[in-house]
Amino acid sequence: MNRQDPEAEIGARAEAYRNWGRWGADDALGTLNFIDDAKRAEAAGLVRGGTSVSLSQPFDMNGPQKGWRRRTNPVHTMLDTGTDAERGNQGFPHGLGGADDVIAMPLQCSTQWDGLGHIFDHGYAWNGRRAGDVVTSDGDLVTGIEQAASAIVSRGVLLDLGRYLQPETGELPDGYAITAADLRSCIDAQGATSAVGTGDIVLVRTGHYARARRDGWGDYAGGAAPGLSLTTAGWLHDTEIAAIATDTWGFEVRPNEFDVPAFQPLHQVVIPNIGLTIGEMWDLEELATTCEQFGRYEFLLSAPPLPITYAVGSPVNPIALL
Amino acid sequence: MNRQDPEAEIGARAEAYRNWGRWGADDALGTLNFIDDAKRAEAAGLVRGGTSVSLSQPFDMNGPQKGWRRRTNPVHTMLDTGTDAERGNQGFPHGLGGADDVIAMPLQCSTQWDGLGHIFDHGYAWNGRRAGDVVTSDGDLVTGIEQAASAIVSRGVLLDLGRYLQPETGELPDGYAITAADLRSCIDAQGATSAVGTGDIVLVRTGHYARARRDGWGDYAGGAAPGLSLTTAGWLHDTEIAAIATDTWGFEVRPNEFDVPAFQPLHQVVIPNIGLTIGEMWDLEELATTCEQFGRYEFLLSAPPLPITYAVGSPVNPIALL
Amino acid sequence: MNRQDPEAEIGARAEAYRNWGRWGADDALGTLNFIDDAKRAEAAGLVRGGTSVSLSQPFDMNGPQKGWRRRTNPVHTMLDTGTDAERGNQGFPHGLGGADDVIAMPLQCSTQWDGLGHIFDHGYAWNGRRAGDVVTSDGDLVTGIEQAASAIVSRGVLLDLGRYLQPETGELPDGYAITAADLRSCIDAQGATSAVGTGDIVLVRTGHYARARRDGWGDYAGGAAPGLSLTTAGWLHDTEIAAIATDTWGFEVRPNEFDVPAFQPLHQVVIPNIGLTIGEMWDLEELATTCEQFGRYEFLLSAPPLPITYAVGSPVNPIALL
Amino acid sequence: MNRQDPEAEIGARAEAYRNWGRWGADDALGTLNFIDDAKRAEAAGLVRGGTSVSLSQPFDMNGPQKGWRRRTNPVHTMLDTGTDAERGNQGFPHGLGGADDVIAMPLQCSTQWDGLGHIFDHGYAWNGRRAGDVVTSDGDLVTGIEQAASAIVSRGVLLDLGRYLQPETGELPDGYAITAADLRSCIDAQGATSAVGTGDIVLVRTGHYARARRDGWGDYAGGAAPGLSLTTAGWLHDTEIAAIATDTWGFEVRPNEFDVPAFQPLHQVVIPNIGLTIGEMWDLEELATTCEQFGRYEFLLSAPPLPITYAVGSPVNPIALL
Repeated sequence: MNRQDPEAEIGARAEAYRNWGRWGADDALGTLNFIDDAKRAEAAGLVRGGTSVSLSQPFDMNGPQKGWRRRTNPVHTMLDTGTDAERGNQGFPHGLGGADDVIAMPLQCSTQWDGLGHIFDHGYAWNGRRAGDVVTSDGDLVTGIEQAASAIVSRGVLLDLGRYLQPETGELPDGYAITAADLRSCIDAQGATSAVGTGDIVLVRTGHYARARRDGWGDYAGGAAPGLSLTTAGWLHDTEIAAIATDTWGFEVRPNEFDVPAFQPLHQVVIPNIGLTIGEMWDLEELATTCEQFGRYEFLLSAPPLPITYAVGSPVNPIALL
Repeated sequence: MNRQDPEAEIGARAEAYRNWGRWGADDALGTLNFIDDAKRAEAAGLVRGGTSVSLSQPFDMNGPQKGWRRRTNPVHTMLDTGTDAERGNQGFPHGLGGADDVIAMPLQCSTQWDGLGHIFDHGYAWNGRRAGDVVTSDGDLVTGIEQAASAIVSRGVLLDLGRYLQPETGELPDGYAITAADLRSCIDAQGATSAVGTGDIVLVRTGHYARARRDGWGDYAGGAAPGLSLTTAGWLHDTEIAAIATDTWGFEVRPNEFDVPAFQPLHQVVIPNIGLTIGEMWDLEELATTCEQFGRYEFLLSAPPLPITYAVGSPVNPIALL
Repeated sequence: MNRQDPEAEIGARAEAYRNWGRWGADDALGTLNFIDDAKRAEAAGLVRGGTSVSLSQPFDMNGPQKGWRRRTNPVHTMLDTGTDAERGNQGFPHGLGGADDVIAMPLQCSTQWDGLGHIFDHGYAWNGRRAGDVVTSDGDLVTGIEQAASAIVSRGVLLDLGRYLQPETGELPDGYAITAADLRSCIDAQGATSAVGTGDIVLVRTGHYARARRDGWGDYAGGAAPGLSLTTAGWLHDTEIAAIATDTWGFEVRPNEFDVPAFQPLHQVVIPNIGLTIGEMWDLEELATTCEQFGRYEFLLSAPPLPITYAVGSPVNPIALL
Repeated sequence: MNRQDPEAEIGARAEAYRNWGRWGADDALGTLNFIDDAKRAEAAGLVRGGTSVSLSQPFDMNGPQKGWRRRTNPVHTMLDTGTDAERGNQGFPHGLGGADDVIAMPLQCSTQWDGLGHIFDHGYAWNGRRAGDVVTSDGDLVTGIEQAASAIVSRGVLLDLGRYLQPETGELPDGYAITAADLRSCIDAQGATSAVGTGDIVLVRTGHYARARRDGWGDYAGGAAPGLSLTTAGWLHDTEIAAIATDTWGFEVRPNEFDVPAFQPLHQVVIPNIGLTIGEMWDLEELATTCEQFGRYEFLLSAPPLPITYAVGSPVNPIALL
């Protein structure tokens, strides 16, 4: 890889792995099309003991966001409280009291899916549309996340790169670029339940979230982190996975693998070109422990976005059922 | 039932069906405790063809809310757009562009779970705690919805009261109070896959949402609606269901069954006393059609709340997998 | 005026009254440049008895907005309450308690100034800049309202067209287009204190707000209303006024004066071309009564916007001091 | 002062300077009642050259707030942009384009007035009301800031303690407690235009804001700062000033003057007991330079809050007119 020329390295991969038109001119789902009912039925068949694991970080004011690109942590406020109710302040009859609440948050503030309108390549969005025809101030008029409302349920596979590559700590160091070879050998090491193929949703654990919770958020949102190498683009394309998620802020390795200014180059390849749905800031800690204990790395994953009209992303509480 | 005395009618049922202490003094889950891993494994075993159905209404600015108790529809705004990206306004290198977004919404604005801190009875919250010790301006410090992050996955059962009681229209009229007898006979009519028992999540379709989408929102949020009768409190308790959801704004029949001012009397019994988690404003249309077509009314239901710290409710996109 | 050809009618006036370059290539204030310190000193000299009148409508959840272009009424929520404080829930020492609050609102939801970046003419903003160079998703990078932080203090003149043209009701009917002749004869009728000239801020009362408060909001936000005719563009330019505000939602007459689809044509002339700052949704009721009583229609007007960085408008509580 | 006993020190001053009932049982304005029309007329008479100075900090995402008590910096987002307009994305006729925007912010996030419901003393609010009767989750039902909509216009006096006590730097060190003696001698030093009396609004410049802008926000919001000593409570009461504002986050000295845990003790005396309206986070830099240059420290101050219904505070852009 030429570390001096991000534009060329990105461009070559964008061209090589571009899925534009693969699912028709009107497509709004990209690689989520790899999931079909049979795949979901197969995934449900993986459930054994019925253990349910939430993969969501807390949506909490004390989160990692520091204001980059106006991303704040969620602000949760109350419209009515038990204090008022107990004091009889609410005006309801027969002893009824109530509490309501409100949230304001960037859709990218915590555990999330990036929609297909989240990233553009030279002014083009997924499937070759002009970015300005897709996402205006009114939102993503074409590939809004609401279109995936029932789509993101499939077989999930955990690839615990943290434990595999760093068995002592379970955590990859910041800046570690996970390669396709790493992914393949992790699959081999974890065994048959880790095989990855068409329609799977791959969850890559780096250990970065564990470190952030232990040591404090620090620069979890936007700082150095382990993550996928730009060179995994081919693997992400060829495996025909439906989606991928990590326990980091940005999915790909940071700092990026270039010696000149670059920003999220792998995003630029996979979202607008491959049409891959990416999850970020997932909590894979309990899942990793569970998989290790059970000796199984596959499960039913139900991770539907909130169908927010025209949104380019969505908060999500993904559930792994084992 | 004495239609002149809501306080007595509510009080009698609250006392009769109160589950305080049933799961220990520290409990934060109420009837969700009826779901265990074996139940979830059994539910996964119900999946046949792998059909995935989203039960969420759109989270959309053109929603039903009109401002009652400061509940608005969601407001979705963009932080970055494709129009800017295409024009090169964003300052990113190598042709990258991006779009981010923000939402502000009441947690009770659309498809939702009511948390256990949502309703109080004479100043008491679930499990007998003082309301003001539970829900302050900081939120629900004790039974916040985040505690149910991995809990709400179980066998779901659709009871299509609309089609059962009104086969021609499929819609119950506003003000129709569904009784326990109605529920039982609907179960009988729908057949064995509709049996309701411990740990199930019951979805009651009235047809009210179908009517609202066809005729316009009107007073969908807070106006007259079909719904459960106060007299179903015993059935809701005795069946040991884990949760219940409807396609209406308020779960119970409106106007209420009293001739004097009353407000959501069944809520007052079931949330703080039974500890029952209630879902409202679900879209059960596609599910009803699917169940009718398949001749099966049971499925795996994955409906985890967003783990918003200290929240008294949560938006949710519930998935039925059949 | 050719009621079939809004584009031509707007274009002719835009060209005739365009002030681009008048205050230099870097200008961000437009006609607010007509106000200088001497003008402000003169305005302060108009104060007699010291009567202070607020010209702001309430910023209230029960406001006129109905969601057009995602404009909602303000949503005000509490972060801490007296109920909590009284109950000792807040954790402060020595008996201290506190209450904080939050607001979420469109900057155009109630009494406001439109900034110079609020309206564009064929893709051009004030002073001939390309709209996309001025207002991106980051806001108005060039003519943001914060630049007028200390500018909008001058002599104010109330022109009570409602009382002048409709002495019995004091209210112009919806759809009434106020002409320059109306403005001139109102000035004559009101007398010498109503003379309008360079640097003045003109407040036009139509009575529409009085009607809305008496009869209910109805379509106050965006419906039919009295207001300025497109033909007043020349008067607005030639008088060299600094700014103008009305008691209506949209400043100009609605429906507009064309028989083919048109939208706020006078805005298109005066904001991007004349560089005129417009105020909307002002409450001129108490001021009108006061002016009538005092027989004086001029006063010191202090109406500074909140200096919200890059905003295209601002809520404001304008104060008339007489 | 007994540095071990904040409760006693606060209590003694609360009792000594309590104004409860002074303006009647229904009062909602406190010391703002000291301003009358004659005072405002006198203030207008102070204007000489017509210099207008904004005393507001920028309302900016890059502000000082770090999340304490859920206070964030303002979040400003666009509903429509010039980029969209220029591209023709907006659907308006005849070449019209528009930009709208939205803000979400704590009312205490930047330049502000604290309303009378902002602070309580042992569960009591201004005028002796129970805190829980005044400020519920619905807001300040009794002394909401909207009641002061036209009230806060008066003679302003700048006391530049920074320049007076630290002529070389113009900045008081963090932790410096300004005493009544300091205030009096500053008045003497600044001369006759600095005399303070009934109905005046006193602006105390410490230089803390200048330091924050030069050195970075650091702990400007809630950290150590110069400010008024608890011992100034008598001066604040006896001078019969209408309001006071500073260029610091918290008005009073921080850390507080006790050796045991204490929090904003002077607030506890002056807001609920004296009924004094306090302004915080004002930008007094340009005003201080102007006053020094003109040799005059008095001016017309127009600083009306936004009339946000039931709010316990308000953002404000105060204007000094000299």
